[in-house]
Amino acid sequence: MADYRSPSTGQMVRAVLFDTFGTVVDWRTGISSAVRAFADSHALTLDPGEFADAWRSRYQPSMEGVRSGRRPYVSLDTLHRENLDAVLRLLGIDPGAFAPGELESLAKAWHFLPPWPDSVEGIREIKRDFIVGPLSNGNTALLVDMAKAAGLGWDLVLGSDISRAYKPSPEAYRKPAAILGLDPGQVMLVAAHDNDLEAARGAGLATAFVARPEEHGPAQRADVTAAGDWDLAATSITGLAGQLRDHSHGSVGEGSHPPSVRDGSVFSFRTDGGG
Amino acid sequence: MADYRSPSTGQMVRAVLFDTFGTVVDWRTGISSAVRAFADSHALTLDPGEFADAWRSRYQPSMEGVRSGRRPYVSLDTLHRENLDAVLRLLGIDPGAFAPGELESLAKAWHFLPPWPDSVEGIREIKRDFIVGPLSNGNTALLVDMAKAAGLGWDLVLGSDISRAYKPSPEAYRKPAAILGLDPGQVMLVAAHDNDLEAARGAGLATAFVARPEEHGPAQRADVTAAGDWDLAATSITGLAGQLRDHSHGSVGEGSHPPSVRDGSVFSFRTDGGG
Repeated sequence: MADYRSPSTGQMVRAVLFDTFGTVVDWRTGISSAVRAFADSHALTLDPGEFADAWRSRYQPSMEGVRSGRRPYVSLDTLHRENLDAVLRLLGIDPGAFAPGELESLAKAWHFLPPWPDSVEGIREIKRDFIVGPLSNGNTALLVDMAKAAGLGWDLVLGSDISRAYKPSPEAYRKPAAILGLDPGQVMLVAAHDNDLEAARGAGLATAFVARPEEHGPAQRADVTAAGDWDLAATSITGLAGQLRDHSHGSVGEGSHPPSVRDGSVFSFRTDGGG
Repeated sequence: MADYRSPSTGQMVRAVLFDTFGTVVDWRTGISSAVRAFADSHALTLDPGEFADAWRSRYQPSMEGVRSGRRPYVSLDTLHRENLDAVLRLLGIDPGAFAPGELESLAKAWHFLPPWPDSVEGIREIKRDFIVGPLSNGNTALLVDMAKAAGLGWDLVLGSDISRAYKPSPEAYRKPAAILGLDPGQVMLVAAHDNDLEAARGAGLATAFVARPEEHGPAQRADVTAAGDWDLAATSITGLAGQLRDHSHGSVGEGSHPPSVRDGSVFSFRTDGGG
C-alpha cells in the first residue's frame, strides 16, 4: 500500500483523477486519423493534422459560454459536433452536404482516442493504492466509450455532465471529491497542462504534472515541462506511479505492510488491480 | 462480441447494470460479521444475524421519506447510520454510550461487503461485451469502496446521489441510462428481487433475474426463484454471462465475428476485461 501525503494540501491522497485529452489519450493522432478516413471517403483535400488542430482550437472558446453562464450546460459531445460544422465551413465545406449521421460519426471519434503508451499500465499501477478516474471536460458516455476502447481501468467515471461544470471552474474539481466523500485535498489531479493544475490547486486539490511534449505534434512549445511547483512531476504515468510509491510512508514492501486505516475502517485495496 | 436483443424492449442491450445489496454482495454475512466484532469488543450480548436483519429491515422504510418527497435526498450512508441508532435503541443499547467514530465505523461495514462467489468472474465476463456498473440505492462513495474491496471491475459507478432518487422510483432507473446516452431499453437491470425488476421494466429497462436463495439466510422464502417473466433468469452471474452469449446474434465464435457497429462508429470492446 502506498500512503502518499500531498505536500501542498497536507492530506493523504485517496483518489488520483486524470485530465484525459492530451494527458491520458493522444487526441491529435486519433482525430487526424478519423479525419483522414473521412476526407478519403468523400474525396476532400485537407491536411488531417491541421484539421485536428483547428477542431481542438475551438474547444476552450466553445466551453466559455457555459462557464460564463451565458449558455446552459451542454455536453462536450454537442460542442464537438458544433465545432466540427464551424471548421468545415472555415475550409469552405458545407456541412449540409453530408448525411447528418456521417458528421455525428466523425464527431464521435473523440470517444475512441488512443492512449499514450504508458497510460493503461500506469493507471493500473496507481489503481492498486488509490481510487482512479478521469477528471475531464468530457461527458460520461464519451469517457466510458474511451475507457472501454483504450482499456483504461477506471474505478469510476464522473463526466462534466455530472458536475455540470467545465474546468477550470472550481466546481469541476470540487464536485468529484464531494461525490467520493473526500476533501479536495485528498484528491490529486494529474494533468499535462499547467493551467489545469493551477485551477485544481486553487480549488484545493493535490497536483501532479505528466509531460506530453508531443500532444500538439512535433512543433509543440507550451507544457513541455512543468512550469509550476506541483506536488509531483513525471514524464509518464508509469513514472508517476513509481513516484507515488517512492514518496509514500508505507513503501517498505507490499507484503510486509499492514493494511491502511481509511476513515476508521481497516481496509486494504486488492493488489491485482481489481479486475 | 455478444449482441443481445432484449425480447421485452426490442432493443440491443449496451449496458448491464446490477442491483448490489443481495444481488452482487452478501450483505447479511458481511454485516453479521462486523456486528459480531463490534459486540465482542464492547461485551454486548446479541445475535449478529438478527441484528443484521433488523438493520436491513429499516432500509426500505427509511428511503420512503425521500421517495415521497417528505424529506430532501440524504445518502444511504446517512440512512444506515440513523438506522443503526434505531436498532441499538430497540435492543435497549444507548447509542450515546459509544464514541461517534465507532458507530460511524460500524455503519461503514456496508461499504465492505463480500461478493457472492460468482460475482467477480461473472461481471468480468459480461464486461467484455457490455458496459457494466451498479444500479443501486448505495451512494457513489459506498459503491466505489465496495468495488475496490471486493474486486468488482465496474466500468462506471453512478450511485443514488447522482440520480438523487431511490429505487423503485422510475428516475433511479432512467437517469443512469440517460447519462450513458442510451435509451432505457438498451439498459438491462440484473437483480435478485422481483419488485426491483418490476419497477425497472416499468421504467423501460430490460431485465434479468439472478437467484440468491440465501440472501436472507437459511430460512428465506421470497425471491428464491423468479416470479416474473423476465428477459433472462439465472442462478449466478456467471450463468447470466453464458446466457447473454448464448442468446446473442454474434455468438458464433469471438475471433470470426466482425466488430459491432455502435451508433455509427465501428467499435469492438476489448476482450480482456479492460483492466
